[in-house]
Amino acid sequence: MPKVTVSLPQGTRDFSADVVRKRHYIINTIKNVFELYGFAPLETPAMENLETLMGKYGNEGDKLLFKILNNGINDEKNIEKSTAAFNNILQGNNDKNLTERALKYDLTIPFARYVAMNYGQLTLPYKRYQIQPVWRADRPQKGRYREFYQCDADIVGSTSSWNEVELICMYAKVFELLNIKVTIKINSRKILAALAYKCGDITQLTTITTAIDKLDKIGIEKVKDELLQNGLSNDAITTIEKYLTIAGTNEEKIATLQQHFGEAVTEVTTELKNLLTATSAYTKALELDLTLARGLNYYTGCIFEIKATDVPIGSIGGGGRYDDLTTLFGVPNLPGVGISFGLDRIYDVMETLQLFPTEIVVGSTVLFFNTGNAEASKAFELIMQLRQHNISAELYHETAKFDKQFKYAEKKQIPYIAIIGTNEMLNNTCLIKELATSTQTEILQLEVLNYFTKK
Amino acid sequence: MPKVTVSLPQGTRDFSADVVRKRHYIINTIKNVFELYGFAPLETPAMENLETLMGKYGNEGDKLLFKILNNGINDEKNIEKSTAAFNNILQGNNDKNLTERALKYDLTIPFARYVAMNYGQLTLPYKRYQIQPVWRADRPQKGRYREFYQCDADIVGSTSSWNEVELICMYAKVFELLNIKVTIKINSRKILAALAYKCGDITQLTTITTAIDKLDKIGIEKVKDELLQNGLSNDAITTIEKYLTIAGTNEEKIATLQQHFGEAVTEVTTELKNLLTATSAYTKALELDLTLARGLNYYTGCIFEIKATDVPIGSIGGGGRYDDLTTLFGVPNLPGVGISFGLDRIYDVMETLQLFPTEIVVGSTVLFFNTGNAEASKAFELIMQLRQHNISAELYHETAKFDKQFKYAEKKQIPYIAIIGTNEMLNNTCLIKELATSTQTEILQLEVLNYFTKK
Repeated sequence: MPKVTVSLPQGTRDFSADVVRKRHYIINTIKNVFELYGFAPLETPAMENLETLMGKYGNEGDKLLFKILNNGINDEKNIEKSTAAFNNILQGNNDKNLTERALKYDLTIPFARYVAMNYGQLTLPYKRYQIQPVWRADRPQKGRYREFYQCDADIVGSTSSWNEVELICMYAKVFELLNIKVTIKINSRKILAALAYKCGDITQLTTITTAIDKLDKIGIEKVKDELLQNGLSNDAITTIEKYLTIAGTNEEKIATLQQHFGEAVTEVTTELKNLLTATSAYTKALELDLTLARGLNYYTGCIFEIKATDVPIGSIGGGGRYDDLTTLFGVPNLPGVGISFGLDRIYDVMETLQLFPTEIVVGSTVLFFNTGNAEASKAFELIMQLRQHNISAELYHETAKFDKQFKYAEKKQIPYIAIIGTNEMLNNTCLIKELATSTQTEILQLEVLNYFTKK
Repeated sequence: MPKVTVSLPQGTRDFSADVVRKRHYIINTIKNVFELYGFAPLETPAMENLETLMGKYGNEGDKLLFKILNNGINDEKNIEKSTAAFNNILQGNNDKNLTERALKYDLTIPFARYVAMNYGQLTLPYKRYQIQPVWRADRPQKGRYREFYQCDADIVGSTSSWNEVELICMYAKVFELLNIKVTIKINSRKILAALAYKCGDITQLTTITTAIDKLDKIGIEKVKDELLQNGLSNDAITTIEKYLTIAGTNEEKIATLQQHFGEAVTEVTTELKNLLTATSAYTKALELDLTLARGLNYYTGCIFEIKATDVPIGSIGGGGRYDDLTTLFGVPNLPGVGISFGLDRIYDVMETLQLFPTEIVVGSTVLFFNTGNAEASKAFELIMQLRQHNISAELYHETAKFDKQFKYAEKKQIPYIAIIGTNEMLNNTCLIKELATSTQTEILQLEVLNYFTKK
């Protein structure tokens, strides 16, 4: 075995044929649903200006950006500037003279940047989807990569709750098509705001949201500790604990909410009831989960999260409504709502439950053996005929022993082999063997196209 | 108009819906042909270890790599190392302590790296295709970008010239499907080697190849100057000039070659004749172009280049045979051959000649107007029914004046609008208007699915 002297960067992956095909099966399913719902594609570059990204993901996020070194930093004329910039960076600052670009960290900020730059040309509400890789310098671990895909759909320029209805139906449809059983969890930041208000301090909304967001991971006692440490009163904490234990059906939860918070939640509960009604014909998976908080600060209304029912894995999708993402880039007053699908986790769920259809990983339909020059030429004619009719076919690249050619077909999971040898040349026939059943049949070369068209 | 405060990095582009759809039309055409010919997909990460890429693209290429700054270079514990590394980089060296990764520059080296790392698992010959972006810190100019797509197909582990036949047929098929008239230029490095040998110095092969490669751009006189400066004799230069003026049909050129070079080209001319014969039933576009040289050093046999006949633009594809790409990474003796499609230039050709089918840029088929809550709910039912049958449909997000909703449909080039107002609610009908013809028809709501299924 040769000694391989090369490796991949930590946290990145090669995707070989089967994996690419499975990933694209998921991507195409999502994309087709996005298109059916009238969303239009957008692609943005891998790189953004560093200043577009900095400060948008909190201090932690800033540290996880992959920054790109400027070119020519060691050119004679740049050395002085570069050195000053490097010292500046050592102080913890950014400096354009050494690095002015970074790889994108998510699809949301580049989307907001695109909307701001193209505001005059866009038809509002603007409904876009975007399926692209993003990069984060996170410590790699199982299921966490430094390059991974996001699949987002957003609508900006509309406050209508029809958008939420559409997004919920899209979630339901995608997972129905992928055959994954899910719970579509929903909550609203407006309910959390009412909670903060009831706790006596609306400015504590972020503290409360951040703590509740950790409930799944750290449990109620630690959430209470965190709230206490952040200055919430015991009364407030009792209120929050009581809120977090509201149980029952969606309707029962809404009724309890109304009891607890009264008028403060009238608008949001009406909105939620309408969402439940409007989507009820299309999904039974919607669950009002009052413990749902979502980490990101920009959400202001409905929030979503998707859990696979049959596999213990984190959320496989999420999203929510925001009042504004583009003010940062000079365009105010563009409310929106969006959802995202977690490709890698969806992939893991589908592998675990063996949900990928077997036919998607098949490459060529038939391998023609190469038994000599004249025979190969005849085989090639038939192969070209099959391809002309969208049937994928291959010729073994050279004359070789049958078992070698056979092994090639087997390893590549090609379901049929076709042999034209001396006898078949004489009789204008072709021997066809189905590998799965080992059945063998001799047909006229004239019938080959017909044979495979019917498969 | 709001003041936008953000921009894109130089040389990078956003692709809006129409452009994405057109690009994917090209990509899908290429991909389908690759699949029909039994090639399997591969995807590699955007980042590679810097040492995987360095030295593979010549000095010029090394300078055009986008290097990624390591994370944590200004952490207390790293400052000393980082500073030493920075000084090292200022000297013109690379240093892992500051930058150990870079964005991939092409798809060939990552492919070779993948083959080396997965050698034991691969079924040989390994036929892969790869359609991904690459990055180069070139000075941006018209038609030259810092992020652009490559679409490659390679076969490694085979010296059979059936591979060349297949690749030529793939080129022909893709451009036939895209409706682009092309010349598939072919030559062989073996002919150029015979030329170098005849010039008296086989070690000058690279010099001769590099000079001939510039013929198109700088003309014969400057090519001769360059050869002279590189130490070739006047006799040698005369030989080269005579070679470059060989004209006629493919067969005539081959005959002249045989006259000039005798036995030294017997093998390669036989190979070329066989290629011409084997592909003649599938393309008339193959042209033996003895002035074709290709820039890359690793080619050792057949080389290809595609020119669009109707648009004056550089090559829109190219490739060739190589003896070995993986020795660098520890796996020797893997000959191969590959081709590449230039997505951006193909796009430009198709735009210039207006070759994109109009239907590919259409998003939704029908927009349902929103005329009130009850009406919108009814419209939504019909929309969901259409989507269930793979017909894309949208509901206008809110109740609004008709001309506003109309304008939305127009701007998004949605071909049909559907209106359910008070009267239609009473009559269980729906008004459908085709925008292109302004024809209007009232049908039963029950008939809506049927109406659009037939379109």
